[in-house]
Amino acid sequence: MNEKQLYSTTISELSVQIRQGEVTSLEVTELILDRISRIDRKLNSYITVTHEEALRSAKQADRTIRSGKYLGPLHGIPIALKDLFSTRGIKTTCGSKILADHVPNRDATVVSKLKKAGAVLLGKLNMHEFAYGTTGDSSYFGSTRNPWDTSRITGGSSGGSGVAVAAGLCMAALGSDSGGSIRIPAALCGIVGLKPTYGRVSRYGVSPLSWSLDHVGPMTKSVRDAALMLQAIAGPDVNDASSSEIAVPDYAKKLSRGIKGMRIGCPKEHFFEALDDEVETHVRGAADQFSVLGAEVFEVSAPKFRFLRAAASTILASEASSYHEQYLRARAADYQEDVRKRLQTGRYILASHYLRAQRLRSLLIQETLVAFKSFDLLLAPTVPVTAPRIGESVIEAGGKKERVRGAMARFTTAFNYLGFPAISLPCGYASSGLPIGLQLVGRPFDEETVLTAANMYEENTAWHKKRPEI
Amino acid sequence: MNEKQLYSTTISELSVQIRQGEVTSLEVTELILDRISRIDRKLNSYITVTHEEALRSAKQADRTIRSGKYLGPLHGIPIALKDLFSTRGIKTTCGSKILADHVPNRDATVVSKLKKAGAVLLGKLNMHEFAYGTTGDSSYFGSTRNPWDTSRITGGSSGGSGVAVAAGLCMAALGSDSGGSIRIPAALCGIVGLKPTYGRVSRYGVSPLSWSLDHVGPMTKSVRDAALMLQAIAGPDVNDASSSEIAVPDYAKKLSRGIKGMRIGCPKEHFFEALDDEVETHVRGAADQFSVLGAEVFEVSAPKFRFLRAAASTILASEASSYHEQYLRARAADYQEDVRKRLQTGRYILASHYLRAQRLRSLLIQETLVAFKSFDLLLAPTVPVTAPRIGESVIEAGGKKERVRGAMARFTTAFNYLGFPAISLPCGYASSGLPIGLQLVGRPFDEETVLTAANMYEENTAWHKKRPEI
Repeated sequence: MNEKQLYSTTISELSVQIRQGEVTSLEVTELILDRISRIDRKLNSYITVTHEEALRSAKQADRTIRSGKYLGPLHGIPIALKDLFSTRGIKTTCGSKILADHVPNRDATVVSKLKKAGAVLLGKLNMHEFAYGTTGDSSYFGSTRNPWDTSRITGGSSGGSGVAVAAGLCMAALGSDSGGSIRIPAALCGIVGLKPTYGRVSRYGVSPLSWSLDHVGPMTKSVRDAALMLQAIAGPDVNDASSSEIAVPDYAKKLSRGIKGMRIGCPKEHFFEALDDEVETHVRGAADQFSVLGAEVFEVSAPKFRFLRAAASTILASEASSYHEQYLRARAADYQEDVRKRLQTGRYILASHYLRAQRLRSLLIQETLVAFKSFDLLLAPTVPVTAPRIGESVIEAGGKKERVRGAMARFTTAFNYLGFPAISLPCGYASSGLPIGLQLVGRPFDEETVLTAANMYEENTAWHKKRPEI
Repeated sequence: MNEKQLYSTTISELSVQIRQGEVTSLEVTELILDRISRIDRKLNSYITVTHEEALRSAKQADRTIRSGKYLGPLHGIPIALKDLFSTRGIKTTCGSKILADHVPNRDATVVSKLKKAGAVLLGKLNMHEFAYGTTGDSSYFGSTRNPWDTSRITGGSSGGSGVAVAAGLCMAALGSDSGGSIRIPAALCGIVGLKPTYGRVSRYGVSPLSWSLDHVGPMTKSVRDAALMLQAIAGPDVNDASSSEIAVPDYAKKLSRGIKGMRIGCPKEHFFEALDDEVETHVRGAADQFSVLGAEVFEVSAPKFRFLRAAASTILASEASSYHEQYLRARAADYQEDVRKRLQTGRYILASHYLRAQRLRSLLIQETLVAFKSFDLLLAPTVPVTAPRIGESVIEAGGKKERVRGAMARFTTAFNYLGFPAISLPCGYASSGLPIGLQLVGRPFDEETVLTAANMYEENTAWHKKRPEI
């Protein structure tokens, strides 16, 4: 296997070759480490590359596999982590000067789970500072750059994860998503990003941004790979009281069961307003494609989503400021400017506003569950535009000027507030060559339906096979 | 049976007589209704007496019992409810002008459960407005008066429940407790009041004051009666997401199992500071009594409790103000002045302060659980003083001047914040003749130990048999 072949290979394909001894984990790991050393100076996706440890655990994986103890589809697969997942003995910076030298003494639950599944850790990925920065340049470790056009942002906050997966600098990554931070960089970098249901994946050992909105999920080259990653990390955790006891299904099993009769709702309101023509065209094209593939696709009314964002922002700003209270007092100057300002402003939100936003929440979840009785999935764009340029703070989307920060999360935040699972997957490319993301949203704990529909679309369009030339 | 005999009879005694046909529910109900009509003008414990309905359901209970379908110890027993429990077709005022004519169209879960257990509802009891008023005079329906001395307050907010049980105007009552509102009037009126563990009893259909501090519990003439009432109302409820699935034990079963070897901790700090000499003497006397009865009683250090109150107050004020937001906007003038002021002030608490108080909470629960490894129960006074006079706003407790509002809840609020179960029961009388309350606190969901110890103490001291002469 050479680097070019590996670049176009997904985990589900590679794992078969590793299991059958056609390729070793060490070969693959060396190829990727070499690629990182050549290419990542242009993209800046890694904060820490755990070169030696990666080689050691790849060799270990190969030994174990040769001895007949194959652990499953992640065994020997080199992956990487957004730098807010605690890794024992490995720096975990959260993209911040404040934690630039922080070395945790234990692994996050999802990290332990990935290790147990045999994955090889390549390193820790760049991110917006404390997952709160929003434009391109709020990591203490510098901007990540979009592999489709390095003058453009990757989206955040899991930007390093988006780039590394898209540019073949790891086979898959974990991100976190409090307002869109997995789905936005997935859309802007042309990969698959899944925000599972609130409670589906443990957050123990993951630096919080906003504990009632934070979600952990996979960022991958394909939908099937997302299913494999989710399988490894999902499930209850005694160390995370918010994790759910609901049983975890076998996600890969039903992935190809077809979508005949599946009901897909396209929102009339909000999600198709003020967006790039090309984005709209490709997302509506995806809706047509679903129809061709046997789903019932129809327009639905979901006017409430417009109002969810303000409530979600109030919660996010309140909780983030509360979490950062002590750092803000002791080390305010060490934050990136945009993050510091947002955190400081958040301190003056009233409890009555915060509580109103939280109380409204259970009401809106109930209403949305009722709406979901008439459809199985909601289909929408992930982001109203393609990747803006680094340094741009205002863009035009569908003829309206808008701040980049606002535009990025316009269609994603509602599902953090509601806690429903949502995936972003590539659904085409603009004339500029930049990727466009399609968002599919399912019922709570019904990741199966989300993954099945996304997989069916992917298998029939193969947009995900296009990789940036870098 | 005559009125005087009934006055000194508990539910556990009366239920035997009802079951055996020695007395009918109708006789008992008529005796109490007659007593209410003569005595309650002095005490003002009832807002609504459901005279006709009570007689009707007493007759129904008698018919059912005669037909051989005895439902258990509450069958045919006349009880009453603090006026914030929703009762279908019966006014539920929350002690406020705002809801003075409010008639719910469904029963609170605990009301349904009591009806199912065969209890006869006598009416709805006076309370501090929306459970938030704190001194004697904040019900729209006028002050309740202490049956031991009608110039004195009953404590609140479940003051009407405290009086009605103490003065024999019902066999038992339900109260609610967000900072001490069951235990304080229990202590001041010389009865038993139990605040169960957070999550043990459903709050569906109970007007909220502060949803993360609110608890529902029984107020009774004896500990055994509290066990019987708790048995009827405890358990999970699909309509209350905060209710726990943890199995409900048979509380009466082990009530007399003895307390030999039980470890009872008396806090060195906080709970024996700035209190009336007579209160301290009687509470310490109770500790000695436990020692005589076979428990290991020793001093423990629990210095954190002092700081819990500020955190609890922040949560209570924030949530109460959030819940009342719309009424405050529309009908501010209809609140009692003290309640309106507190609610209005609560609107300006910062989310960062609220969240700090909530985040501290899980930490302190963990710390307290660790402390509880060295003892089974914590023993403390319920209130640092005996009942103050109506109209007094500042009192002296242990030589220090203090606002009544602050003094009342000084020893109780911590256990709302922590969610641990706590009972108040009589442990003696001051030279003024006023009752003194002893507080016993147990581990989460260990109401059994709390009730067993309290019952053993009660059986060996019989303070609960003394009734006010009214």
